[in-house]
Amino acid sequence: MNENTPSPAAVRRVACIGAGVIGGGWVAHFLARGYQVTAWDPASGFEAKLRRLVDAAWPALMELGLADRASRDNLVIAPTLEDAVAEAEFVQESAPEDLALKRDLLARIDAATPAGVVISSSTSGYGMTEMQVDCPTPQRLVVGHPFNPPYLIPLVEVVGGERTEPWAVQWAAEFFEVAGKSVITMDREVPGFIANRLQEAIWREALHMVANGEATPAQIDASITEGPGLRWPLLGPCLTFHLAGGEGGMAHMLDHFGPSLKSPWTRLEAPELTDELRDAMVQGCEEAADGRSIAELVADRDRAVIAVMRAIDGVRNGKP
Amino acid sequence: MNENTPSPAAVRRVACIGAGVIGGGWVAHFLARGYQVTAWDPASGFEAKLRRLVDAAWPALMELGLADRASRDNLVIAPTLEDAVAEAEFVQESAPEDLALKRDLLARIDAATPAGVVISSSTSGYGMTEMQVDCPTPQRLVVGHPFNPPYLIPLVEVVGGERTEPWAVQWAAEFFEVAGKSVITMDREVPGFIANRLQEAIWREALHMVANGEATPAQIDASITEGPGLRWPLLGPCLTFHLAGGEGGMAHMLDHFGPSLKSPWTRLEAPELTDELRDAMVQGCEEAADGRSIAELVADRDRAVIAVMRAIDGVRNGKP
Repeated sequence: MNENTPSPAAVRRVACIGAGVIGGGWVAHFLARGYQVTAWDPASGFEAKLRRLVDAAWPALMELGLADRASRDNLVIAPTLEDAVAEAEFVQESAPEDLALKRDLLARIDAATPAGVVISSSTSGYGMTEMQVDCPTPQRLVVGHPFNPPYLIPLVEVVGGERTEPWAVQWAAEFFEVAGKSVITMDREVPGFIANRLQEAIWREALHMVANGEATPAQIDASITEGPGLRWPLLGPCLTFHLAGGEGGMAHMLDHFGPSLKSPWTRLEAPELTDELRDAMVQGCEEAADGRSIAELVADRDRAVIAVMRAIDGVRNGKP
Repeated sequence: MNENTPSPAAVRRVACIGAGVIGGGWVAHFLARGYQVTAWDPASGFEAKLRRLVDAAWPALMELGLADRASRDNLVIAPTLEDAVAEAEFVQESAPEDLALKRDLLARIDAATPAGVVISSSTSGYGMTEMQVDCPTPQRLVVGHPFNPPYLIPLVEVVGGERTEPWAVQWAAEFFEVAGKSVITMDREVPGFIANRLQEAIWREALHMVANGEATPAQIDASITEGPGLRWPLLGPCLTFHLAGGEGGMAHMLDHFGPSLKSPWTRLEAPELTDELRDAMVQGCEEAADGRSIAELVADRDRAVIAVMRAIDGVRNGKP
């Protein structure tokens, strides 16, 4: 951090390096939030594709409500990476998942970005420690991992590398919150972070099932959209199982269904259900329940599932 | 099937054996759909708890719209298992997950249920082959696996055992559809069926993360509710990644991100991405997309995510 580091709320100019599905999604998000955005991508003619992506996203963003001063005219296409970041107060990198490429690119971005300005990578799996190796000032580089589409899905996972200074992680988390995202700040690097590990576990099991002829992609999708997917917008996997325990909650669930962790229900071997793990889950769910009884959680869940089903029905039936 | 087997649409009397969270949820569902329901559970005094569960579910069921003749007065508490099934036209068993217990219970149910009437088990993991061993007429026993709460989540996975006759599987699938469920009929037994394998993969990875201090239950839940959980009510994991490939869809996604299957993103080892698997995924997604372009799917997804977020906001803010 130096005198050049703006307060997270004062940022006006954002640079987006890489303008594919994720980078373009970030561009749309920042434009909708009223930022000035400079974009650069090495692909020739990327501008047309980027503007198409932003145009496709714009109706949804208008529907959600644009920030004051939000305009697609605030997008500037930069001729070079160095031009894109020269006056940036925050940089989001969204290049393809290729470690050597990311190392080179982040080193170039770092060299060209004003000192004290935080640089964030959209990487979905690399740790910043392995990406920041060639950076001249690695202390300001963080991972800011979004979900597709970044202009709608709130989650951003923020985590630094070994050479990242804590202020940069904290600054990025605050900036993303100001910019309308929902932030999880991790205090250690884990491959795939949190959500991607969970999502990837589903994905790998799904691939195994297709590979073995046990289910088709359509059956796999229906098993989620007609099943647990209807609960997950309100209740994550932990609170979902907190309710599966009936009036006894997570404690009852683990004490009664714990043995099923030994069942061959996935190709993923489960951890040993030690007393410590049991207690961490029970206590974590109590904290997440935040004083709400199981009955109150059940009532909320029921209202949420109905609301979600209606919302999805509306979309399927083409209602606006 | 015999002259005693009603057509699926003609069923009026349903027996629910086991009246805990799942069995009680089935009772609420069948009552709301206008069926006469007899319930039995070995627990003394189960009636009060069951009526409490039905009462708690009823506002949600009224909100969704009750069937003609639906009434909580159509619930009869049977003094014995044999009384409960004596005149049933369909039986749903929802006992605890204990194989010996299920074997005994299903044999008793089978012995007491009129010939030709289909008997379904709510088991979340056992195959019917291993549960029907002591049944005198195993040909009419199927798994009909629901999701909690069965009165709201549409999915039921239907699959028979080795000694189940195909007509029973087909009859059960038709009956559940008539009774307002969304059915996936599986043509082979897989431990955990489809949705539970996917859900269990997430759950095991989540437990590993908590056990290792990599994430708290609250972070795990937020990573889903603020992230991929917002897409899953409309797009299952396959179509989700179909869109992650940008305009190239699943083919581009697998060809470009396939190598990340080798990444240590979960404790679950991924299958080899053979050409056959790749093609099965690509073709499956094309079928699931059902002629909709990526752009159309993206527009639908965006509308759905907004609708889901608004629905969830309403619930969180206590709006009716």
